[in-house]
Amino acid sequence: MAKSSITINDIARELNVAPSTVSRALNNSPKISDFTKQKIIEKAEKLGYNLNMVASSLSRSRTNTIGVVIPFLNNFFYSEVINGIEEIAYNKGYRILVAQTKDSFDKEKEILRTMSATRVDGVIACLSSETTTTDHLRSFSAGGIPMVLFDRVRFDFSCRKVVIDNYSAMQQSVSHLARSGYKNIAHLGGPSSCNIYSEHAKAFKDTLKKAGLPLLPQFHLSTNLTEEDIAEAVGIWLNAEIKPDAIITANSHAALVVSKLIREQKLSIPEEIALTSLTCEPALHFVEPQITSIELPGGDTGRTSMTYLLNEIEHGEQKNDTTIKPFQLIIRNSSFRNK
Amino acid sequence: MAKSSITINDIARELNVAPSTVSRALNNSPKISDFTKQKIIEKAEKLGYNLNMVASSLSRSRTNTIGVVIPFLNNFFYSEVINGIEEIAYNKGYRILVAQTKDSFDKEKEILRTMSATRVDGVIACLSSETTTTDHLRSFSAGGIPMVLFDRVRFDFSCRKVVIDNYSAMQQSVSHLARSGYKNIAHLGGPSSCNIYSEHAKAFKDTLKKAGLPLLPQFHLSTNLTEEDIAEAVGIWLNAEIKPDAIITANSHAALVVSKLIREQKLSIPEEIALTSLTCEPALHFVEPQITSIELPGGDTGRTSMTYLLNEIEHGEQKNDTTIKPFQLIIRNSSFRNK
Repeated sequence: MAKSSITINDIARELNVAPSTVSRALNNSPKISDFTKQKIIEKAEKLGYNLNMVASSLSRSRTNTIGVVIPFLNNFFYSEVINGIEEIAYNKGYRILVAQTKDSFDKEKEILRTMSATRVDGVIACLSSETTTTDHLRSFSAGGIPMVLFDRVRFDFSCRKVVIDNYSAMQQSVSHLARSGYKNIAHLGGPSSCNIYSEHAKAFKDTLKKAGLPLLPQFHLSTNLTEEDIAEAVGIWLNAEIKPDAIITANSHAALVVSKLIREQKLSIPEEIALTSLTCEPALHFVEPQITSIELPGGDTGRTSMTYLLNEIEHGEQKNDTTIKPFQLIIRNSSFRNK
Repeated sequence: MAKSSITINDIARELNVAPSTVSRALNNSPKISDFTKQKIIEKAEKLGYNLNMVASSLSRSRTNTIGVVIPFLNNFFYSEVINGIEEIAYNKGYRILVAQTKDSFDKEKEILRTMSATRVDGVIACLSSETTTTDHLRSFSAGGIPMVLFDRVRFDFSCRKVVIDNYSAMQQSVSHLARSGYKNIAHLGGPSSCNIYSEHAKAFKDTLKKAGLPLLPQFHLSTNLTEEDIAEAVGIWLNAEIKPDAIITANSHAALVVSKLIREQKLSIPEEIALTSLTCEPALHFVEPQITSIELPGGDTGRTSMTYLLNEIEHGEQKNDTTIKPFQLIIRNSSFRNK
């Protein structure tokens, strides 16, 4: 195997640094900055250099700090997850530092490098919607820091994962609307590169078919969920010959925007159009009518993720399994016709 | 002066550790954990040991990481501030790690210790509503890490501060309501231990007086802004002999709760009761009627705070001044009578 013959000289040549720098970095010398170390470790990993020895030589003093990586700070579900993580963490003497990727793959890579450099004891991460590969996760793991993924995960990366049953969330939402007599159900979805949204999409099609309802291609839109995308989708639907009589949105912000756009068109919710959301936030209770939604188990997801991470940090337990958390569909007035 | 005679032995005796441990900690030996170092530095500072030498001996390798401390992650204003901080930081090669105090003074102290241990290059903080002293800030500064405070600050701690003109925010809100013909204006305020809310309270009284309007003691409530507090306040007001015809809330979440409670009582906004908020969030646009609010300069506050911090980190610029950021009052239908 060519890989076994990789030497420190090969790594040095690739990075245009001295072999002594590579050697010092892999031996965790204090003369080399943490950023350089991480770069050299990543390159070594990419070239196939045996990093097991390196990982163990990077024996860290505990900082009792856990890094949490989320797409956005200002989000009800993620803040509930972090509250759950903190519940477990604070009792065990760990502190939490959070970073947001803003759904950028590049930021996600930089944040993982930063967390490695600041010597966190472990990381809990929800991946950005742009993330379609796992090299950066493998590089991070090569540094010997445990990781748990939640919600938006990559199943081709080996670690413990905690996810929501996204397929069932969509299935229950469609079934509820079908039972209430809605026939032309539309789905305002997220980018299909992300596991959540691809599971929603599959469940949407499957469940409509089972219910004997039509799937019009234009009623199933995969968008980036920006306000512009949402306005464009609603504009198309409300001006079409066949209009939807129910809309399922990928998240609660989209539901709030759609609700406002429908009211501005003087259409009544739920009589003319029903509306349901696949995530929740308190604002859904403050608008009229209140919006039906999937209540995600944020706190529970956070507690379980932190418990798994602690098992790995403190007891060296390494697993590659997936825990699926249950959710609740809460039916409110936006999808409940009084006829 | 007794303070000048403090020795390493005194510090060791107080903490019940060996003098060699104190010496090693103050010389930043890798044999001592960062947590122990921080404890010893805090005790040394408290006893009056000369820490300038210590601070300089703790010469840190840069991590290019900035710690941001905020009361809550799930908050529109703080997330806008962080977006502003990140705009400047990312361009300069710095990464941001965020921690929430949940308005707990104890957590604030622990988080600052953690940030010190994880070797951030600087900290930008908005203090918890429980914070009424500055010893923990002084201990943190003794470690030589630059700090900028924003929004909720302590003027008795020497550093650069970036704040909102809270007095004027209340003054403009009251004046707007008075001009619109409202006479019995009530204020649902926050805990007066916090600079923001004490400034609101003072401006509320001053402006009512200037406008020749009555200040009924029961119309000026200082609360912890929990949903229970808000429901209790609104209950008292709506059942009183003299009812308020306008309510100003300390923040947007309180405004959303009050708006819901008023609608449940079948009172009309703004005809019977006007409603304005001293902070904003997108949900204020989604409810009917949309709620008048102060638009805080979150992004601008973040950009300025980060610029000041960088000046100190990279150029050693140390100042003790306060920058007051402007805001806008946006009048929406909740306080605009069509008569």
